[in-house]
Amino acid sequence: MSLNPVIHRTPAELLRLARAILSATGSPPEQADDVAEALVGSNMAGHDSHGIQLLAGYIDGVRAGRVFPAEKPTLIKREKAMAILDGHWGWGQTSGRAGAKLAIELAAENGVGAVVVRNCHHIGRVGEYVELMAKAGMTGIALANVGPSVLAHGGTAKRLGTNPIAWAAPGGDPSRPLVLDIATSTIAGNKVALARARGVEEMAPGLFVDKHGEPTQSPTAYFDGGTLLPFYGHKGFGLGTMVEFLGGALSGSLPPEQLAIQYGNGTIFVAFNIGAFVPPETFRSQVDQFRNVMETMPPAKGFERVLAPGDPEADARLARAKSGIPVPEPTWNGLVEIAASLGLTPDGVAKQL
Amino acid sequence: MSLNPVIHRTPAELLRLARAILSATGSPPEQADDVAEALVGSNMAGHDSHGIQLLAGYIDGVRAGRVFPAEKPTLIKREKAMAILDGHWGWGQTSGRAGAKLAIELAAENGVGAVVVRNCHHIGRVGEYVELMAKAGMTGIALANVGPSVLAHGGTAKRLGTNPIAWAAPGGDPSRPLVLDIATSTIAGNKVALARARGVEEMAPGLFVDKHGEPTQSPTAYFDGGTLLPFYGHKGFGLGTMVEFLGGALSGSLPPEQLAIQYGNGTIFVAFNIGAFVPPETFRSQVDQFRNVMETMPPAKGFERVLAPGDPEADARLARAKSGIPVPEPTWNGLVEIAASLGLTPDGVAKQL
Repeated sequence: MSLNPVIHRTPAELLRLARAILSATGSPPEQADDVAEALVGSNMAGHDSHGIQLLAGYIDGVRAGRVFPAEKPTLIKREKAMAILDGHWGWGQTSGRAGAKLAIELAAENGVGAVVVRNCHHIGRVGEYVELMAKAGMTGIALANVGPSVLAHGGTAKRLGTNPIAWAAPGGDPSRPLVLDIATSTIAGNKVALARARGVEEMAPGLFVDKHGEPTQSPTAYFDGGTLLPFYGHKGFGLGTMVEFLGGALSGSLPPEQLAIQYGNGTIFVAFNIGAFVPPETFRSQVDQFRNVMETMPPAKGFERVLAPGDPEADARLARAKSGIPVPEPTWNGLVEIAASLGLTPDGVAKQL
Repeated sequence: MSLNPVIHRTPAELLRLARAILSATGSPPEQADDVAEALVGSNMAGHDSHGIQLLAGYIDGVRAGRVFPAEKPTLIKREKAMAILDGHWGWGQTSGRAGAKLAIELAAENGVGAVVVRNCHHIGRVGEYVELMAKAGMTGIALANVGPSVLAHGGTAKRLGTNPIAWAAPGGDPSRPLVLDIATSTIAGNKVALARARGVEEMAPGLFVDKHGEPTQSPTAYFDGGTLLPFYGHKGFGLGTMVEFLGGALSGSLPPEQLAIQYGNGTIFVAFNIGAFVPPETFRSQVDQFRNVMETMPPAKGFERVLAPGDPEADARLARAKSGIPVPEPTWNGLVEIAASLGLTPDGVAKQL
């Protein structure tokens, strides 16, 4: 399998370029920061599927009028432990950050807080928002529905999106919370896109079917009308349904066909104030103890070590701070092209015209 | 494969016998009802794994002093949208019902409500508690940790339990909510026990390993020191970790070794008051619409029809109301033996001595 070449860039370089592209297409500084930090933050966490590769599609969205980069979320309702935000189809990252922060605030007051966001553009890596909760000393979940791309279990049509579930919990080291961040499909669609950008011709079996409903391992066949599968059949499909109704229906983001057009996420954030339930230091030490059990457990055949949820992200941050972020050449070339069309150099600096 | 014979009993017959056995071993009428209704309710919902087959082990627990059948949960703390119950190692079903009802009450007041239960004996079928939320017109989740029986993903030791996740949402028909109720392992341990009671010699591949860590499909090998696997590797293991900390740590039910001894569930109930977020009739009609899409979708090869989460439970209730509940003969004989030891007939009536 011959893969596309990869270019390494530092986070600072990618941040500068992303900010410049976002600014040049109408994002005010704060919103440009939200999106650039979220994308490069995903690369740093090892989730290249939700990293800088998304920027080209985002800018397409701006140009096509599917996202309004200067919008900010507004508060529709705040009552006791719940709130509703309207994202007005501004950047999902701006709405998502506002939603997670508000959930933390509500949980601090009420023990638990739930915030839904409607008219919310793609929020990116869902793990980002639960990591915000862990940084605030809380534990919490984030669920987001998305337009249909996943086959109904036992069926022949798409009905749910990849509908991710994220959760985080703080231990003693603020840089290493436990983090769960999974699609309820076998794999996120953006991971298939990443494989395609890398030039991968054959992915693992069992992830998706082609346009005829037949099993395939080819990312190209997937993007030619293919469909993802729910993970582990009825279990993944049931979890996806839960996300559809907690994230989608409660936020007023159903039917999902509307979301498909808008590339949006009906989102719910639920934060729990640990200290309202148990002594926070007990909770944190239990997180550390859990991680320690994983670290010291002999690995199974075929595994180098046993990872706790969140370890891959923390490890990637350390590695990429040293060696930079790998960007497949086609992705990089696309960014350079967009930059050029905006009168920018690949370094994110305005060209001398 | 020759299976053990199955005896059919009506729900009323099983309820009477279960109540009689529970009463004769120290459960006051209310608690005996909680447990009997929960067990037979699980049979009616098609979850024989969590049905009447659990009663023998429960009575063992009473006799061994691991459960205190006359205890009722007490309120440790109630503040704004959260509460803590202490189950005092009474019946988990009594604690679970109290917890779910309190979560509903808190959500009615605050939009969302979260209740944890500590010192909580086995709560049985977790779906029961989210169905209570759906009956109250709410949507909500229930998570419960349990003593270790599941291999760490990529590891060689048990660390998590089957740590189930349940969720329900109401549609227009109160008897058919959407219900998710899954173990975060490949399968619930009680389903392996059911297979053994039925005389099944070979289950599906990939569910568990034997005491040497080698794959096996034999329920007997599983009960001889075997270990369940997390479902879909890192995804199921990550979800199980989430349950461990939201259900277990927040309720003060860690470390899990303590739970293993006590056969308990560190539990959290989170209820959402749909009407605080969106018009309830919109939500309900979206549930019905989702179900309708599933019902009318052509099934994939090998499937008779496409099921929404909760359909198997609703279908089983209709079928078993007609034809009764199938009980494997060894399970039935065990119940008759317990009844006899308590001076009861198999009909749950005191013997003429």
